[in-house]
Amino acid sequence: MKLTILGCYAATPRSLTNPTSQVLTINNHMFLIDCGEGTQVQLRKNKVKFAKIEHIFISHLHGDHFYGLIGLISTFMLLGREKPLHVYGPKGIKEVILLQLKLSNAWTSYPLYFHELESEQSEVIFEDDSVTVETIPLIHRVYTNGFLFKEKPKDRKLVIEKAHEYQIDVTLFKSLKKGKDVVAETGEIIPNKWVTEEPEASKSYAFCSDTLYNEAIVPQIKNVTVLYHESTFLEQQKSLTDHTKHSTAKQAATIAKQANAEQLVLGHYSTRYKDISVFKEEALEVFPNVSLAEDGKSFDFD
Amino acid sequence: MKLTILGCYAATPRSLTNPTSQVLTINNHMFLIDCGEGTQVQLRKNKVKFAKIEHIFISHLHGDHFYGLIGLISTFMLLGREKPLHVYGPKGIKEVILLQLKLSNAWTSYPLYFHELESEQSEVIFEDDSVTVETIPLIHRVYTNGFLFKEKPKDRKLVIEKAHEYQIDVTLFKSLKKGKDVVAETGEIIPNKWVTEEPEASKSYAFCSDTLYNEAIVPQIKNVTVLYHESTFLEQQKSLTDHTKHSTAKQAATIAKQANAEQLVLGHYSTRYKDISVFKEEALEVFPNVSLAEDGKSFDFD
Repeated sequence: MKLTILGCYAATPRSLTNPTSQVLTINNHMFLIDCGEGTQVQLRKNKVKFAKIEHIFISHLHGDHFYGLIGLISTFMLLGREKPLHVYGPKGIKEVILLQLKLSNAWTSYPLYFHELESEQSEVIFEDDSVTVETIPLIHRVYTNGFLFKEKPKDRKLVIEKAHEYQIDVTLFKSLKKGKDVVAETGEIIPNKWVTEEPEASKSYAFCSDTLYNEAIVPQIKNVTVLYHESTFLEQQKSLTDHTKHSTAKQAATIAKQANAEQLVLGHYSTRYKDISVFKEEALEVFPNVSLAEDGKSFDFD
Repeated sequence: MKLTILGCYAATPRSLTNPTSQVLTINNHMFLIDCGEGTQVQLRKNKVKFAKIEHIFISHLHGDHFYGLIGLISTFMLLGREKPLHVYGPKGIKEVILLQLKLSNAWTSYPLYFHELESEQSEVIFEDDSVTVETIPLIHRVYTNGFLFKEKPKDRKLVIEKAHEYQIDVTLFKSLKKGKDVVAETGEIIPNKWVTEEPEASKSYAFCSDTLYNEAIVPQIKNVTVLYHESTFLEQQKSLTDHTKHSTAKQAATIAKQANAEQLVLGHYSTRYKDISVFKEEALEVFPNVSLAEDGKSFDFD
């Protein structure tokens, strides 16, 4: 599981800071999460093979989270894309994208599917053999979802030497990996645990931005591998969170602690702070494993 | 008259090339022309005091000419702008901008006026004491206008010593600058030319992008000071112009020659060409005074 931060600053794009967008690579999927203005340039700068993106998740319809989407969709068109593209985001996203394509007298060369969200409850919005994606209802000034990406339980690890030792036919290996007991060539029943080991732990990633401090999300993200939680402000500016519906670094760390996350990644910093290390310092007072998102930084969680 | 090129490449924004946008400073006005994705960042990078922009002219609704507009409008809002902003562009531009503001649950802190264009004939769309702006109907795949910016005739230059010599009262100086004859303290009629000199020549700037080669624009831009004309292709790729409705460098130069322009600035280069100097070489075969637009380059036409 790998995370590349394309942008992690609040509000307007600037010369050196980019609005929210990130690429999550998980079980061979490349998911794009949010798409602020300039995301396609950030994808190029960070040498992301972005033709691989098939699913884009938009948390909410504030500009710093989606004004780059129409440009990316258009660029896919200019590059002759044929693969389908799925966009998941709040109701309204389809209308605004299609209106812009219509005004350009353009249509996509590839199937473009919109999955509009309006539920206030968590729902599974993507699922295949290896990954599920659920919405995490957040509290912000407009309808907003976080996203929880979960690897499905992985196959048990087959110990080949043991399988041979017990004379198990190769056609049964798949059953073994799925945790089944099998019958050996000798007729003997071989308990699964004799020839397999525990699978690699499944990883999960929770993206929570933008949101007011909201403990209601804790049960859903319990034991998450990595929690990305917005920290627009420091505690010193906590009075601003009520009105803006944002969080402080300490609040992000509190959610990470309550959720028993393995790791917290902070982001969505207000550009009022010249040095982002202060966010990490504040969060470390509450939670031990804190990293700072930075534009262009990649995290390898394997 | 000063021109700052924020972006001058066709199609998609890339790491090092930006889509169309430029700032024209003329008679104390700062006009923004087109606004591709990333324009607000380019304004910052080029240290343009962009709060001064009050009028934005959008040639057409292809993404590389206007996808940065909503972001700029939003940023003006975040910066607490109060001054009115006027946007001139094809019909539809108001709907798409307002839809995006509505989805963000946002409204501007300043008056935002849209002047939607749909005439196939040239029309004056802005006029004040010192400048006029006219549309230049262009031929492209969607409804497109170029823009002709013209300084109004300037005041004649008063030769103060002469005015004193002829005993002309100071209250008549304004009349002299406007070309009037006046009556001196002595009662003598003083012909204007005795005490004034020719005014500084009025400058003009024609922005013509995107367009198929179109001689019909020549009469309107006759004797223009500076012609910016798109040159997406070279003659070698001329076969592409019919379908894409773009021009070659040679065609741009031909329009400059026919219009008797003082200077031609080329831009809107297809990124298929690694070295843009080839555009200048081709244009120079037809017209002598050719410059290349480059992202971040400023031209001073005084």
